[in-house]
Amino acid sequence: MSVVEQPTATLHFPPLQPPKRYLFGPGPTMVDPRVYAALSKPIVGHLDAYFIQVMGDVQQLVKMVYGTTDGSALVISGTGSAGMEAAITNFVEPAAKFAVFANGYFSDRLTEMAKRHGANIARFEKSWGEVYSDDEARDFIRREKPQVVAFVHAETSTGALQKGDAICKAAHEVGALVIGDCVTSLGGVPVNFDETGIDVAYSCTQKGLSCPPGLSPMAISERAMKWLGARTTSPRSWYLDLKLIHDYSTVSHRYHHTAPISMFYALREALMVIVEEGIENRWERHRRANRSFVGGVEALGLKMHVPPEHRIANLSTVRVPPGVDEAKVRKHLLDGPGIEIAGGFGPLAGKVFRIGIMGPLATEENVQFFLREFKKALNAQGYEA
Amino acid sequence: MSVVEQPTATLHFPPLQPPKRYLFGPGPTMVDPRVYAALSKPIVGHLDAYFIQVMGDVQQLVKMVYGTTDGSALVISGTGSAGMEAAITNFVEPAAKFAVFANGYFSDRLTEMAKRHGANIARFEKSWGEVYSDDEARDFIRREKPQVVAFVHAETSTGALQKGDAICKAAHEVGALVIGDCVTSLGGVPVNFDETGIDVAYSCTQKGLSCPPGLSPMAISERAMKWLGARTTSPRSWYLDLKLIHDYSTVSHRYHHTAPISMFYALREALMVIVEEGIENRWERHRRANRSFVGGVEALGLKMHVPPEHRIANLSTVRVPPGVDEAKVRKHLLDGPGIEIAGGFGPLAGKVFRIGIMGPLATEENVQFFLREFKKALNAQGYEA
Repeated sequence: MSVVEQPTATLHFPPLQPPKRYLFGPGPTMVDPRVYAALSKPIVGHLDAYFIQVMGDVQQLVKMVYGTTDGSALVISGTGSAGMEAAITNFVEPAAKFAVFANGYFSDRLTEMAKRHGANIARFEKSWGEVYSDDEARDFIRREKPQVVAFVHAETSTGALQKGDAICKAAHEVGALVIGDCVTSLGGVPVNFDETGIDVAYSCTQKGLSCPPGLSPMAISERAMKWLGARTTSPRSWYLDLKLIHDYSTVSHRYHHTAPISMFYALREALMVIVEEGIENRWERHRRANRSFVGGVEALGLKMHVPPEHRIANLSTVRVPPGVDEAKVRKHLLDGPGIEIAGGFGPLAGKVFRIGIMGPLATEENVQFFLREFKKALNAQGYEA
Repeated sequence: MSVVEQPTATLHFPPLQPPKRYLFGPGPTMVDPRVYAALSKPIVGHLDAYFIQVMGDVQQLVKMVYGTTDGSALVISGTGSAGMEAAITNFVEPAAKFAVFANGYFSDRLTEMAKRHGANIARFEKSWGEVYSDDEARDFIRREKPQVVAFVHAETSTGALQKGDAICKAAHEVGALVIGDCVTSLGGVPVNFDETGIDVAYSCTQKGLSCPPGLSPMAISERAMKWLGARTTSPRSWYLDLKLIHDYSTVSHRYHHTAPISMFYALREALMVIVEEGIENRWERHRRANRSFVGGVEALGLKMHVPPEHRIANLSTVRVPPGVDEAKVRKHLLDGPGIEIAGGFGPLAGKVFRIGIMGPLATEENVQFFLREFKKALNAQGYEA
């Protein structure tokens, strides 16, 4: 046992004492105390009737936030990126034609995953922050005739919201399935899964749902479930195989993997908080907070990166004013009042702040608190409104 | 918004109130109140210096429980099965020769994953519950000359412990890497990663580590890290790509995915509980509890499925006595005192009980509590010791 004794003896860690943060970034965001309480309830087994019930409740609640009555809900035991990979591995067969609207970081990630799954990829590239008109979407899809189309509904890296209606309509005309990345939109702005016609959507827990990160709630249309049922090859990922996960979660409850029980408790509670507020009320609260936030940043003489009609209510990109070092502004906010926001990356590195006003923070009081501290941090870097 | 309004209005769920369970199954197991407290501490961002520190602490603690000073530790944001898939997708290239010791459910799962990753598979089959002698292991590996060898250290489905020394030695002679499934062994019985010569090990949080499920701690030898660094193709999974995860976790801290912050808090605390007890003391406590447990079941006239020299201290398979319906015994235990144990599956369905005496339950008092209730449940099914 000599190999083990030495490191044990020298391992001394202080008690866990996370600093108090105001999470005004793109996620993770603030969590309701009720959700923390649920998170730490005693676990039961992953095949316990009580847990099966919890999974069932979560599925119903997930359907509600997505806005689907026809579709199915499944929850992946991984983060939003695991949901993205589940969408790809289950619905993009090797050599399938995969068309992606590429206007930000997460469409690049979709592209990378599809490439690794052997897809034949067609990208429609636009600058980060731009969106696609209905005509552009339709023309691209008619020209490429893909088997699968993917778009990012609310692109966290740019702050732009891409409407899905025309994409879904054109995709269905050519017989394609549509994957919609709803990581940032779910719970913050309407997804309207059924109305829009999305076939496969994935999200995360730590943005619009105000829950800690760790699970990926998905919605899957009847059409996509049928397609999956007819698929004769196995997805390359076993862990993310939706047929097996569906069977464990909703049909036979046969063991697939040991679901993260505590995270399901937390997600159930986070969704119940949303139900109690009412999903439309929640969307309206985010819209109101966003109006106030945008008014405030414009009053500071700052510019929004995305035009008003394409903004995401719960995630904004604000242009860094000339001469200001955005990293120093972020450091000032974090070291002082403990506010976390994010910078841009890729083509937007150094050019934008990414600010999330969501969940418990989407109130007038919190917006004003943020604006006050943001102004001070900018002033400290020599910026005068 | 009409699609949404209707389901919202009809969604009424009772408050989350999980029943009290004594988790005497193969996992999840009981969790220390300190770990639940850590789980519900306020989250910080996944790129926050505090969280980077937490990840670093966890890596050091994971190395300690695995018994490695030379290897690296990484934690996968998924359950034990995600760790298994990470081992396969990163270390088994398509068409690689993959040799697996197939004596239980989890070696079948390894086989299935390797198949999906396009490996050329050689299986050495044995009955569930049997293990491989040093000679058998060496002969198989010398004959097959694989690039990757996989074995299950503690096979949850059978209760048998497979020593890894001879496997690793023979594998290294033919230039192969060794994957060791330590899902059930880590924290319960010694893994001795460096001494044994394992190259890639994965585990879970909800068995020997006494933490809720949701993460998969891995250990990776220097040899395996070098091999991975030299690999020129991308693993088929992006989510489980260990080069990217290693970079995020330990090198650049560049964003890969949003790590499940709360689960990392919990795992850090669970590992600190282990450090404070001392890992050798913990192993000894499990061994002692197991001796007492085995003595008790044998006194009831029951038979262990695995011979003494191949048993797992924290997970036992007890043969179901003739004429007893094991499902009814389990139901009796769950409905009465709230004790969860598991049945067998595959070739052992209906033939064994799978009983975990681990973590907080591995004390004389808890063993005696279990044995009393187990006896009553067996008696209720007409079994008389």
